[in-house]
Amino acid sequence: MENTIMNFGAGPSKLPREVILGIKDELLSFRGTGMSITEINHRGPDYIEMNNQARDLLRKLLNVPPTHVILFIQGGGQGQFASVPLNLMGRTGTADYLVTGIWSRMASREAMNHGEVNLVIDSDDEKSIPDQKTWKLNPNASYVYYCDNDTIQGVEFPFVPETNDVPLVADMSSSFLTKRVDVSKFGVIFAAAQKNVGTAGVTIVIVREDLLGDAREHCPNVFNYELVNQMDCMYNTPPVFAVYVFYKMLQWIEKQGGVDAMEAQCAEKSKLVYEVLDQSPDFYFIHAERNVRSRINICMHIGSPTGVLELEEKFLKEVEEKKMLQLKGHRFTGGIRISLFNSITMDEVRELLAFIKEFAKKYKPVAKL
Amino acid sequence: MENTIMNFGAGPSKLPREVILGIKDELLSFRGTGMSITEINHRGPDYIEMNNQARDLLRKLLNVPPTHVILFIQGGGQGQFASVPLNLMGRTGTADYLVTGIWSRMASREAMNHGEVNLVIDSDDEKSIPDQKTWKLNPNASYVYYCDNDTIQGVEFPFVPETNDVPLVADMSSSFLTKRVDVSKFGVIFAAAQKNVGTAGVTIVIVREDLLGDAREHCPNVFNYELVNQMDCMYNTPPVFAVYVFYKMLQWIEKQGGVDAMEAQCAEKSKLVYEVLDQSPDFYFIHAERNVRSRINICMHIGSPTGVLELEEKFLKEVEEKKMLQLKGHRFTGGIRISLFNSITMDEVRELLAFIKEFAKKYKPVAKL
Repeated sequence: MENTIMNFGAGPSKLPREVILGIKDELLSFRGTGMSITEINHRGPDYIEMNNQARDLLRKLLNVPPTHVILFIQGGGQGQFASVPLNLMGRTGTADYLVTGIWSRMASREAMNHGEVNLVIDSDDEKSIPDQKTWKLNPNASYVYYCDNDTIQGVEFPFVPETNDVPLVADMSSSFLTKRVDVSKFGVIFAAAQKNVGTAGVTIVIVREDLLGDAREHCPNVFNYELVNQMDCMYNTPPVFAVYVFYKMLQWIEKQGGVDAMEAQCAEKSKLVYEVLDQSPDFYFIHAERNVRSRINICMHIGSPTGVLELEEKFLKEVEEKKMLQLKGHRFTGGIRISLFNSITMDEVRELLAFIKEFAKKYKPVAKL
Repeated sequence: MENTIMNFGAGPSKLPREVILGIKDELLSFRGTGMSITEINHRGPDYIEMNNQARDLLRKLLNVPPTHVILFIQGGGQGQFASVPLNLMGRTGTADYLVTGIWSRMASREAMNHGEVNLVIDSDDEKSIPDQKTWKLNPNASYVYYCDNDTIQGVEFPFVPETNDVPLVADMSSSFLTKRVDVSKFGVIFAAAQKNVGTAGVTIVIVREDLLGDAREHCPNVFNYELVNQMDCMYNTPPVFAVYVFYKMLQWIEKQGGVDAMEAQCAEKSKLVYEVLDQSPDFYFIHAERNVRSRINICMHIGSPTGVLELEEKFLKEVEEKKMLQLKGHRFTGGIRISLFNSITMDEVRELLAFIKEFAKKYKPVAKL
């Protein structure tokens, strides 16, 4: 392996080697212009062409129907925590939130600044998702909001919520393009790029076109879906480099076989990891309940359900010596987090699993004492 | 010259050759981590160190006093068109705007969504700035807003407005670090990076600390100066690459001799250009009045005050053949725009001026017929 570092970070996360090498190769001259992508006029033909190619390729890869528009917006996923209510809450003044983890909780809190928020689910353990039959959705809600995959606790929705025609809004930052989704079921899908599709600085927002045009008067123009759409994703100067890396990632995904290939690979990688962890259930304590385990972020403690700090520190120290990096859990939870974004290879997963087995063998007997 | 392209674009604009080569050199391994700057955890020590170094170096270069905080925010200059009123208008519900060009006009229009806007100046020609003695400032305004340098019409404030203790807010996107300013006179200075200090995706916001804490309830958290400041510029995942390029530019500016050197060079470059243009006042028609001519963006028409299209097209075609690019005026105005950001060298200016003289010699006689 030319690059011996293995980056299991939760985002900003690893880019495929081929992608970062390609970026390096053309950093001084974007598409033969003699200028770097960072230096180019976003209203000129070369950038506009790439902007449109990126949107077209995403439409193709994810089968985005003509009823939906694709926007590139700055501000990250959390920018969307405000943008979603600012653009959609105006219709009825109230929205339903499914709080199953920290990200959906933060989104719901920000939405409370913009209207009435009904917490349909309000998880206190952030490890489970109650049966849909028990939910009390408000038929008058402007939208139903959920976070498809929570990166902090490793909980993923194994299904798409049924909302009976209320627009469904999904934060897919960490699951974007890891699986096929039926976009027609969604009012809005958004994803910050730095997980599966590039680098931080651009958020991809897919919006059902008939939901445009209801933004609150005080919605910042740069967050106004309708204005951004009217200006072809370039309401103002776009984050040119981040959009460029996003397009590079889309091309790479296409080359790998598209979203279906990503989905198959993601399923295989996570299955392997869970199989190994499940061999030591009294040593590796996976946070999420079995039926909602994330295929992308596997969050666990070592030694006990809340973690034995000394063991977890040993784990991180020893794994880093083997050049496997960024496996520390989120600062809110501690523990270990294994992120299996699209760019993580099977070889990297196998190397990590060899370590995980070895570590259990070495320390499980000690931990039991 | 290794790179034969000369990029006079108005933004995203040229990076110094040395800076873009440096970025390329370390693109695969940021500070020896083995990971690209695009792949690195923003809560890890390497990124935090750089984030803090960037803020410290800006503080040093611009002599930012301890009364002011430095923030990195996404959304561009236009993001600040909303953020400024969302953060500052709450104090009195009204603000004064000095409209001297298209950018300040757009800012004033967006501010009207957030409170009462008093247009102290409302330029209809966008080529002059009325004498300060004639302004009717509202002593009860939450702030006085202006755009220090308008890139579209090439009009620059030759002075800092006096506001009698009302906080002064400046859009310095295109003049940032081209001259020394007394930061203590300002409530807020903001600058999108893609002009003088890097690439699109990050906006630098300098705020007087006592102005924090009054944000409107519906201000998006990612735009809330107080929240961003509390989180040390990392309320959410920052646009890591754009912050990195910004830091590289600061280091380059320091190496050139700091802001004083930039100011001297900027004065010299613009003086040379105006001298040559003024030799053909009946051929090159500079838009701005003499006392408010921009040192950074020189906007003109050729052949007549509103331009002879055929001549301007010839100019652009012939200058591009000489590999001098992005000299076309803004789509709102047409004509020619010469942008002299910090990265433009004296050699590039001289080469352009040789062309400009030659072009006048060749076509002035024809134009006069």
